[in-house]
Amino acid sequence: MRVGELSRSSGVSVSMIKYYLREGLLPAGERAGAPNQAEYGAAHVRRLRLLRALTEEGELPATAIKQVLAAVDEHRPLPEALGIAQDAVVAAPDLEDDDRPAETFVAGFVARRGWRIDPDNPGYRSATRILTTAHRLGFTALAGLLDTYADAAYTIAAAEITAFIGVGPGSGDGLETASAADTGHRHPGRPREVSREQDLESAVTGIVLGEKMLSALRTMAHQHITLQRLKPLPAGPASGDSAAPPP
Amino acid sequence: MRVGELSRSSGVSVSMIKYYLREGLLPAGERAGAPNQAEYGAAHVRRLRLLRALTEEGELPATAIKQVLAAVDEHRPLPEALGIAQDAVVAAPDLEDDDRPAETFVAGFVARRGWRIDPDNPGYRSATRILTTAHRLGFTALAGLLDTYADAAYTIAAAEITAFIGVGPGSGDGLETASAADTGHRHPGRPREVSREQDLESAVTGIVLGEKMLSALRTMAHQHITLQRLKPLPAGPASGDSAAPPP
Repeated sequence: MRVGELSRSSGVSVSMIKYYLREGLLPAGERAGAPNQAEYGAAHVRRLRLLRALTEEGELPATAIKQVLAAVDEHRPLPEALGIAQDAVVAAPDLEDDDRPAETFVAGFVARRGWRIDPDNPGYRSATRILTTAHRLGFTALAGLLDTYADAAYTIAAAEITAFIGVGPGSGDGLETASAADTGHRHPGRPREVSREQDLESAVTGIVLGEKMLSALRTMAHQHITLQRLKPLPAGPASGDSAAPPP
Repeated sequence: MRVGELSRSSGVSVSMIKYYLREGLLPAGERAGAPNQAEYGAAHVRRLRLLRALTEEGELPATAIKQVLAAVDEHRPLPEALGIAQDAVVAAPDLEDDDRPAETFVAGFVARRGWRIDPDNPGYRSATRILTTAHRLGFTALAGLLDTYADAAYTIAAAEITAFIGVGPGSGDGLETASAADTGHRHPGRPREVSREQDLESAVTGIVLGEKMLSALRTMAHQHITLQRLKPLPAGPASGDSAAPPP
């Protein structure tokens, strides 16, 4: 198909397509007969939809998207590709001297949970910096919620790795799976044949869209719970406290 | 104190302080004796630390911060202030025609959970747009995880509202609390006297930092779980599948 049809199929404007081509985010089409004409295929439509998702929903900058797509295209091993996607999604601050107490705390927290975390993990550095900030603000409530956050994060991450990457608990064969995918062998649990590239695409898409979906649902839950708990009492002396004091 | 000491106390550079003053994000100091000299107090230090947290950790743009701080300073009712903070944190897209199927789905999902959600809630609109995007990508795995996300989001949000705002389940006196705070009456569970303004500050800080902390822990959990599940097998035919097939 020509660029006009590519635009209609993907929902991406011709000028954005040209931008993605210039940036090297979209591979060039096949040269067609006439000069300045190129022929595009289904892979281009797919790549454009992914670019649109990462740009519009993920709000990722072009440099981050370039790194993520390179990891997909170069068929990097899954943990490495995941790491690159996470680097793109989570800003990893450089830690400074005043982050040391918080880093000691986070290292202990992670060890207590038995999590194997690379100190270069962007989440590790981000959590450290956030705790430093909270401490500076005298905002102690955050540290008190760490276990609540970590429990929820673990449950979510485990379900995501299963759903987005097809690596369930106890499968223990992920790296084998990577090469098996290329020869058509799949997990029994996988509903369809997918290529190694699509596996990585799915992982990246899930990391990015899952983050936004969780944030959206947390926002909704805040509204529901606030309205539910903040029912104004009928006029008269406040008495709700004694009935059920907050914990 | 003078601006130099304000800078040292808050960790914010003098040039950033001047920027915040120009933008109206930081109230002007008291005029001191000499011209061009102003005197700042503890409230300025506190406000600067909050500004630094919202800017550096929350990565919020100046316009969003201005709205959030206005809500704090104007002592808006808590649900309204929370809504303003959420608008600042979660990008709420305008829904378009192609979002209608997803919106119907989200409306049904919310109703099934018994959540009271305003259709203007930024999370409601964001969730709708993300589902439209996932559908366009053929990425069906995300919709399959909605209940997992919602369960986790609800647990987190309930703990946050209790911890950051001090409104526990069954207290049912939130709006009363708002005015009670001004006269010094507090929940039995609250550890210290706080002003109405500090309540709102705490709510806003928690919304922003909590979002980042959850994201950081999810990123760490992804790494731990991926490494745990993707242990390379010793050389030989892949056999991990049969031992414990993925769900």
